[in-house]
Amino acid sequence: MFVGGDFRNANYKIIMLKNKTLKLVEKGSHGSKINSVYDIFIMVLILLNIVAIILETIPEIYDSYKNTLHIFEIVSVIIFSIEYLLRIYVSDITHPSSSRFKSALKFIFSIYGIIDLLAILPFYLPVVFKIDLRFIRILRFARFIRILKINRYNKSLSLICTVIKEKKSELTITGFVTFLILLIASFIMYFVEKDAQPDAFPNILAAFWWAVATLTTVGYGDIYPITGIGKVISGIIAILGIGLVALHTGIVSAGFIEKIGKDKKEKKTCPHCGEEID
Amino acid sequence: MFVGGDFRNANYKIIMLKNKTLKLVEKGSHGSKINSVYDIFIMVLILLNIVAIILETIPEIYDSYKNTLHIFEIVSVIIFSIEYLLRIYVSDITHPSSSRFKSALKFIFSIYGIIDLLAILPFYLPVVFKIDLRFIRILRFARFIRILKINRYNKSLSLICTVIKEKKSELTITGFVTFLILLIASFIMYFVEKDAQPDAFPNILAAFWWAVATLTTVGYGDIYPITGIGKVISGIIAILGIGLVALHTGIVSAGFIEKIGKDKKEKKTCPHCGEEID
Amino acid sequence: MFVGGDFRNANYKIIMLKNKTLKLVEKGSHGSKINSVYDIFIMVLILLNIVAIILETIPEIYDSYKNTLHIFEIVSVIIFSIEYLLRIYVSDITHPSSSRFKSALKFIFSIYGIIDLLAILPFYLPVVFKIDLRFIRILRFARFIRILKINRYNKSLSLICTVIKEKKSELTITGFVTFLILLIASFIMYFVEKDAQPDAFPNILAAFWWAVATLTTVGYGDIYPITGIGKVISGIIAILGIGLVALHTGIVSAGFIEKIGKDKKEKKTCPHCGEEID
Amino acid sequence: MFVGGDFRNANYKIIMLKNKTLKLVEKGSHGSKINSVYDIFIMVLILLNIVAIILETIPEIYDSYKNTLHIFEIVSVIIFSIEYLLRIYVSDITHPSSSRFKSALKFIFSIYGIIDLLAILPFYLPVVFKIDLRFIRILRFARFIRILKINRYNKSLSLICTVIKEKKSELTITGFVTFLILLIASFIMYFVEKDAQPDAFPNILAAFWWAVATLTTVGYGDIYPITGIGKVISGIIAILGIGLVALHTGIVSAGFIEKIGKDKKEKKTCPHCGEEID
Repeated sequence: MFVGGDFRNANYKIIMLKNKTLKLVEKGSHGSKINSVYDIFIMVLILLNIVAIILETIPEIYDSYKNTLHIFEIVSVIIFSIEYLLRIYVSDITHPSSSRFKSALKFIFSIYGIIDLLAILPFYLPVVFKIDLRFIRILRFARFIRILKINRYNKSLSLICTVIKEKKSELTITGFVTFLILLIASFIMYFVEKDAQPDAFPNILAAFWWAVATLTTVGYGDIYPITGIGKVISGIIAILGIGLVALHTGIVSAGFIEKIGKDKKEKKTCPHCGEEID
Repeated sequence: MFVGGDFRNANYKIIMLKNKTLKLVEKGSHGSKINSVYDIFIMVLILLNIVAIILETIPEIYDSYKNTLHIFEIVSVIIFSIEYLLRIYVSDITHPSSSRFKSALKFIFSIYGIIDLLAILPFYLPVVFKIDLRFIRILRFARFIRILKINRYNKSLSLICTVIKEKKSELTITGFVTFLILLIASFIMYFVEKDAQPDAFPNILAAFWWAVATLTTVGYGDIYPITGIGKVISGIIAILGIGLVALHTGIVSAGFIEKIGKDKKEKKTCPHCGEEID
Repeated sequence: MFVGGDFRNANYKIIMLKNKTLKLVEKGSHGSKINSVYDIFIMVLILLNIVAIILETIPEIYDSYKNTLHIFEIVSVIIFSIEYLLRIYVSDITHPSSSRFKSALKFIFSIYGIIDLLAILPFYLPVVFKIDLRFIRILRFARFIRILKINRYNKSLSLICTVIKEKKSELTITGFVTFLILLIASFIMYFVEKDAQPDAFPNILAAFWWAVATLTTVGYGDIYPITGIGKVISGIIAILGIGLVALHTGIVSAGFIEKIGKDKKEKKTCPHCGEEID
Repeated sequence: MFVGGDFRNANYKIIMLKNKTLKLVEKGSHGSKINSVYDIFIMVLILLNIVAIILETIPEIYDSYKNTLHIFEIVSVIIFSIEYLLRIYVSDITHPSSSRFKSALKFIFSIYGIIDLLAILPFYLPVVFKIDLRFIRILRFARFIRILKINRYNKSLSLICTVIKEKKSELTITGFVTFLILLIASFIMYFVEKDAQPDAFPNILAAFWWAVATLTTVGYGDIYPITGIGKVISGIIAILGIGLVALHTGIVSAGFIEKIGKDKKEKKTCPHCGEEID
C-alpha cells in the first residue's frame, strides 16, 4: 500500500512535472511568473540568434568576435535542442495519439515540429555530412510564429487569414490577369526594345523583369524603355499597376467590411425587448 | 426499317460523338475523367508554348535546341489546328444558327474563334506570305482566357467586371482628370527644365514621359528635375499620384462593398409587412 | 400694328437666334444634330491645338511645318474668339443681371469666362506688348472642363467632389502630418548625411526633395542615403509612405461608402407597405 | 473694509489678468480679437523660425545674413521664453494640483511643457555647456501640434487616432509579418547575390536595405539584383509590397467604415419596441 501510494505519488509528481513542462514550452498557458520569464528568454534568444547571423556576414565583426559567436551558437543550439526534446516528451499531451511513439512522430512531422527541427539541424548536419547549411539557421526566426500564434494577436491574425481565404478566388483571378498582363507586356517590350538596346533587353526574361519592376512601380532604373513606343507601353503598364493596386485593395477592403458586417449580424438583438433586428 | 434503324442508330452515334467532342473541347463540362485529362493536357501545352517562345529569344538556347523547338512548334500547331477544326465541327451546338455554315461563321468571328485562329495563324502565314508573324504566337496565351472563363473563377471574374462596369463613369472621370494633370505638368516641366537639361527634356513628349513615371511613382531615374521649381512641381505630381491611387481605390472599394450590400439586400424583407424588398 | 407685329416678330426671331446660339455654345443642351456636330468640332479643335503645341516643341517638326502651324494657330484663335464673343452675346441669359453690360462682365469674370479669355489672350498680347506668352496656350486644354462639366459625367464628378469636400478636414490633417513628417525627416537627414555626401545633401531643401521622393515612393535614385542611420530613416519614411497611402485611401473609401449609404437611406421605403425602413 | 475691498479688488484684478493670460497663451479660447492676433503671430513666428533654420544650412545665405539670422534667433527665443514663463504662471489653472509648485512641475513635465522647453533650450545650453544643440531647434515645429490640437481639426484628428488605435492589433500583426518577410528576403538575397555583386551586397544589413526599398516600391536604383534568382525574389517582394499596401489599406478602410457605422448606430432605435439601442 505504501509502495503503491509512493508509486501513485511518484506518478502524480511526474504528471505534475510534465504539465509544468508543457506550460513552460507551450507559450500562452497563462501560468506562474516563471512561464513569462521563460517566454521572454526564448524570444530574446531568437532575436540574438538573428543578430548573430547578421553580424557573421560582416567580415570585420566576424574576424574579431569569431569565438564569441561560435560559443553563442553552441549554447543556443543546446537550449533549442533541450526544448525540442522536452516538446517530444510532452507530445503525448499536445498531440494525443494511440501510443507514445505515435504522439512523438505526430509532433515531429507537424509544422511546428519541423520548424523546431530545422532551427537546430543546420548545426548538427555539417558535423556529420561536412556540408554547410548554416544559412538555414534563418529558420530560427520562423519560431517566432509559434509565439505569435498563441497570444493576444491570435484573433487579428485569424481575421486577416479569414478575409484573405474568403477573397482567395477574386485575388487568384486578379493575380492571373496580372501575370497575363506582365507576360504580354514583356513580349511586346522585347520586340520593341531589343534593337534599340540589346544589352538591356537581351531576351524576354529580361523584359519580364522590367515588366515586374514597372507594374509594381518599383522602377529601380536598371532597365527602362528608350524608344517612343516602349515608353508608351511602359506608361500603360505603370498606370495598370495603379489600377491593380486599387483592385486588390478594393477586394481586401470589401472582405474586411463584409466580415465586420457578418460579425455584427450574428449577435444583433435589441437589448430592451430581446427581439432580433435584421 | 432496319436500314432506317441503322441510319437512326448511326445518326444517334454521330450525335453522341459530337456531344463527346463538345464536352472535350469545351472545358468545364463536368464529365468523364478523359475531359479533365484533355483540359490539363491543353493547359500544359499552352504553358510549354509560352516557355518555348521565351526560350527562342535566348540565343544560346535557340542555337542548341533549334530543331527540338521547331518540332515542338509543328506538333503544337497541329494539335491546336485539330482542336480548331473540332470546334468548327461542333459550332452548330455551341453557336446555334439557321444553317451549319452560318454556325461555323458565327464561331469563327466570335472572340474565342478569333483567338483560336490567331494562335495558329502565325505558323501558316509565313509559309504563304513569307512574312514573320512569329511574335503573334504570344496570343496562344490568350487561350487561357477560355479555360479561365468556364470554371470556378467565373463568379469572381464576373463580380470584378460588374464592379468596374458600374464604376466606369467615376473611373473615366478620374482617368480624364489624371490625363489633364499629366498634360499640364509636362507642359510646365518642359518650360521649366528645358534650359537646365536640354538633353533630358528635349520636347513636351519627353516631359510627358517624366510625368507618367512620376505620377505612377515608378521613378526609373532616367529623367528627373534638377531646377528648384522643377523639383517642387515633381513633388506635387508625386503627391497627387498618391491621391489618385487613394481616389481610384476608394471608388473600387465602394463598388465592391455596394455590390455586397446589393446581394444581401436581395434576401431582405421589410420588418413591417414581412414581404420581400427588391 | 403690322409694324408692331413685325417688330415683335423680329424680336422673336432675335430671341430664337439667341437661344439657338446659346444651345450651340453651351454644350449639353440636348438639341438638334448641329449642336452635337459643333461640340465634336470644338473638342477636336482643342485636341489639335494641344497636339500643335506639343509638336512646336520638337525642333525638327517645327522647322518643317512652321507655316502650317502658324496658320492653324490663327484659324484656331479666330474660332475661339468668335465663340468668346458669342458667349458674351448670350451672357444675359446665362448670367442674368440687372443690365446687359453687367451680365457680360459677370460672364467675363466668371471662371469659364476667364478660361475662355486666357485661351485666346496669349495670341493677342505678344502683338501688343511684344512678350512671349505662348506657353499659356496650354490653358486651351482647360476648356475641356467646360465640356466635361455639362455631360453625363456630371453626376460622377460631383460625387467625387462631394466625397473630397466631406473628408476635407481629415485629408487636411493627414496632409499637415505628412508635411510635418517630411520636414522632420529632411532636417534629420540633412544632419546625418551632409558630411558623408555634401554634394547630394548640400542643404535642407535638398533633403526635403529626397524626403518627398521617398515618402511618395517615387525614388528616382538621384539622391539617396549612404550612411547606416540615413538608410534606417529612409526605410522608416518609405514605410510611413505606405501607411499614409493606406490612411488616405481609407478616408476616401469611407467617404464613398458613407455617401452610398446616405443615398440609400434617403429613399428607403418598403415598396409593399410604403412604410419607411430604418 | 476699504483695505479689504482694495485687496479683494486687487486679487480680482490678478485673477482677471491671469485668465486673460490663460486665454492668450492657450489657443482656442474663443475670445477677443487680441487672442486671434496673438495666435497668428505665434504661428508666423514658428514658420519664420523653420525658414530661418533651413536658410542657415545654405552657406551663401548664411554668410550674407549671419547677423540678421542671429538677431532673429535671439528675438524668437526671448518671445518663446516669455510665453513659457507665462504658461508656468497660469499652470495652476491649466494643471490644477495641491500646490502652486506642483502645478508648475506638472506643466513642465507634461508633453507640451517638454516641447516648449526643448524649443528654447538649444539656445541657452551652448552658452552654458559649450555644446552645439542648434539642430534641436527643429523641435520648434512640434509646437504646431499645440495649435493643431485645439482647433476645428480636433475631431478629425481624434477620429483618425481612434481608427488607428482600434486597428492596432491587426496593424501590429501585419507589421510583424512585413518585418519577417523583409528579414527572410534579405537573408536569401544576401546568399544569392553576394558572389555576383559583393560591393552591393556586402552583408545582410545591405540586403535588408534593398528589401525595404523594394517592398515599399521606392526602388532608388542604388542596389538591385543582377542574378536570375535574385530578380525572381525581387519580383516576389515587390508584388508582396503591393499586397501589403492592399492589406493595410483594407484594414484602415474597414476601421473608418466601422467607425461611421458605430456613430450611426448610436442614434438607432429598435423597430420593435421603439427604445434606443446602444
